[in-house]
Amino acid sequence: MQILVQKYGGTSVANTNRIKNVAHRLISSKAAGYKVVAVVSAQGDTTDVLIAKAQEISGSPSKRELDMLLSTGEQISIALLAMAIAEEGHPVVSLTGPQGGICTDYTHTKAKILRIDPARVRKELDDGKIVIVAGFQGINPLGDITTLGRGGSDTTAVALAAALDAEVCEIYTDVDGVYTADPRLVPSARKLDEISHGEMLELASLGAAILQPRAVELASAWDVNIHVRSSFNNNPGTIVKGGHLMENKRVVSGVTQDLNVVKVMLVDVPDQPGIAHEIFSGLAAKDINVDMIVQTTKQGPKTDLLFSIGQDDYSLTKKLINGISEKLGITQVLYSERLAKVSIVGAGMMSNPGVAAAMFGILAEHGINIEVISTSEIKVSCLIDAGKVSEAVRAIHDGFNLGEEVTAE
Amino acid sequence: MQILVQKYGGTSVANTNRIKNVAHRLISSKAAGYKVVAVVSAQGDTTDVLIAKAQEISGSPSKRELDMLLSTGEQISIALLAMAIAEEGHPVVSLTGPQGGICTDYTHTKAKILRIDPARVRKELDDGKIVIVAGFQGINPLGDITTLGRGGSDTTAVALAAALDAEVCEIYTDVDGVYTADPRLVPSARKLDEISHGEMLELASLGAAILQPRAVELASAWDVNIHVRSSFNNNPGTIVKGGHLMENKRVVSGVTQDLNVVKVMLVDVPDQPGIAHEIFSGLAAKDINVDMIVQTTKQGPKTDLLFSIGQDDYSLTKKLINGISEKLGITQVLYSERLAKVSIVGAGMMSNPGVAAAMFGILAEHGINIEVISTSEIKVSCLIDAGKVSEAVRAIHDGFNLGEEVTAE
Repeated sequence: MQILVQKYGGTSVANTNRIKNVAHRLISSKAAGYKVVAVVSAQGDTTDVLIAKAQEISGSPSKRELDMLLSTGEQISIALLAMAIAEEGHPVVSLTGPQGGICTDYTHTKAKILRIDPARVRKELDDGKIVIVAGFQGINPLGDITTLGRGGSDTTAVALAAALDAEVCEIYTDVDGVYTADPRLVPSARKLDEISHGEMLELASLGAAILQPRAVELASAWDVNIHVRSSFNNNPGTIVKGGHLMENKRVVSGVTQDLNVVKVMLVDVPDQPGIAHEIFSGLAAKDINVDMIVQTTKQGPKTDLLFSIGQDDYSLTKKLINGISEKLGITQVLYSERLAKVSIVGAGMMSNPGVAAAMFGILAEHGINIEVISTSEIKVSCLIDAGKVSEAVRAIHDGFNLGEEVTAE
Repeated sequence: MQILVQKYGGTSVANTNRIKNVAHRLISSKAAGYKVVAVVSAQGDTTDVLIAKAQEISGSPSKRELDMLLSTGEQISIALLAMAIAEEGHPVVSLTGPQGGICTDYTHTKAKILRIDPARVRKELDDGKIVIVAGFQGINPLGDITTLGRGGSDTTAVALAAALDAEVCEIYTDVDGVYTADPRLVPSARKLDEISHGEMLELASLGAAILQPRAVELASAWDVNIHVRSSFNNNPGTIVKGGHLMENKRVVSGVTQDLNVVKVMLVDVPDQPGIAHEIFSGLAAKDINVDMIVQTTKQGPKTDLLFSIGQDDYSLTKKLINGISEKLGITQVLYSERLAKVSIVGAGMMSNPGVAAAMFGILAEHGINIEVISTSEIKVSCLIDAGKVSEAVRAIHDGFNLGEEVTAE
């Protein structure tokens, strides 16, 4: 019997009716002949409510204790969902992350999954039960509860799908699938039937809040097929899978925006070996994700170093940079929060060198200034004024004709 | 260094200010030279809110899942309290019941502690940390979360105090100590300085909602001294300890009332061996606590069998009794919820045979009818009309002069 892993986000279990809806979906999947594992997030805004409670007590609460606190959110969801399934007369068991064998490293609030010990999950499946596992959380070698960071439930689901050799990992969300652009910004945005892991990874990293990047990375590494679909209907969604896909015919698959960007600029950094390493290893040690890095060559022995981070890491980054800037002889640090990142993604880009230039051209036509550019094999990102982000996304979507269907030749 | 176990109830951690207050108390105790373990309940009405969520989904939710759900309440409290202590710069760690080594049997929602594995708690204490343990919860041999039933945090605290050989187990509550009667009913009620485990056990069982009976039983078995006191001031409270105490000079130590009573009367039960066993073993198998049992001898081959239970067990008892009454040839079952139990407790009662009679006399003087009587060596309980309970408690308190101090001779 094939195993199906289904992940339901916070909006899908936000209240009693929605929990019952998810219960019925799981029971149907079981009736269709699958062994069913559900991974569930905290209800609605539970996590935010808990964070607010912590903030009342401490401006920078202990991360270990924050994990202890936040993990209750998913625990409430799994218990309620299991009750709803039991109420329908179906055998079911809920498991916390630790009980589900989600073994992580020691990094509280941003833990990484080291391995899955699926013994308990397998046993319960073999006993004919629907198994509900708390997303977002795990246990470290000390026996302490860890959390995987925001959106970590996707990672839990993919990791379980890999460990259980599941047929597919269905990620249920409040949208129908992956679109060529955010449909709220671009009315002509089109749902993709399939997309490769690599493209999805770029889209996920670039602010399409549908799948957690780490989850896609994991899916790519373990070759897990992900089906992104809505928990509110039965429409087919978007399949995210390995290999080269039909969509590659199209040079650009989608355009994304990300407002969670802070630009940091270190002015007049001594241009000598080891400086960049000193700065970025310090940030990495505190688990701060640095995104774009640009170094501007100047005349003389000094250079400007520019990089971007997420807003969550702003205050910690500021503290760290203050600590090392004097030591490194950096006199001026500029921060900017009024920026957004707009990106295009597409596996076909690799063999089309003109794509980046086309994007810059579209932005220029609309009078949108580009502050920073960063590219990879399958994406191009530009930092622009946050006030122009909607205009930029629509212009790029239209410019690359992303709203039009491409049929197989 | 001596170990101090302190237990704080739900009202003591109901909001941020109270949590900070508890944090300061714990830090003071540590500064006074103790190794400090705190046991904490869920905040305020959290447990009720969670139960309401479950009830929305199912009229009789799975008990395993109910434990999964309810245990989040204490987990939130311990995380917040640990954050508050860390905020003051003191080393601290929070531990769930499972992490604290609270090993229980399999009886979900009413689990019994089988043993304590204090290794982790000891290690953290040796590392100089204040240790916060979630009350009310434990782990069964399957690795599933169990809860100890309402008020189970007291039991957790006493069990930890016993396992750690603590000097004293301080139970903080919203009252100053144990009184001769409920001060809300009897203004002249007097706080007791000391009381024996045995007397406290009767008081606790009889509805004085200060200490959980099981906690007192455990304290008696392991000779743990309990100090019942208020978390809102520094007044000395009541010491509950083993052996014969000064208070024994007084025949009656206190009077209690309990409105959580349902009377069940089986009419015309066949008077043959094994019937009572059949009925009460059936109830015991479902963990229903039967309190008073009275059998009324009649003429002929039939008898009336009467017993009392708590309101929580009412619907389940009804179901069970319906199931067996036909089989046993019982034609009529009467239930009454409009009763209350009034009791007097005192170790001195054993050698004073007139005490029960005096209590009946006081009730008779006030025209209060007694429905059922039950006695032990150190208490006398009467079921009376619930509407007369305040009058009865005041009359008994006055009749035995409980408001007056007794000095050592």
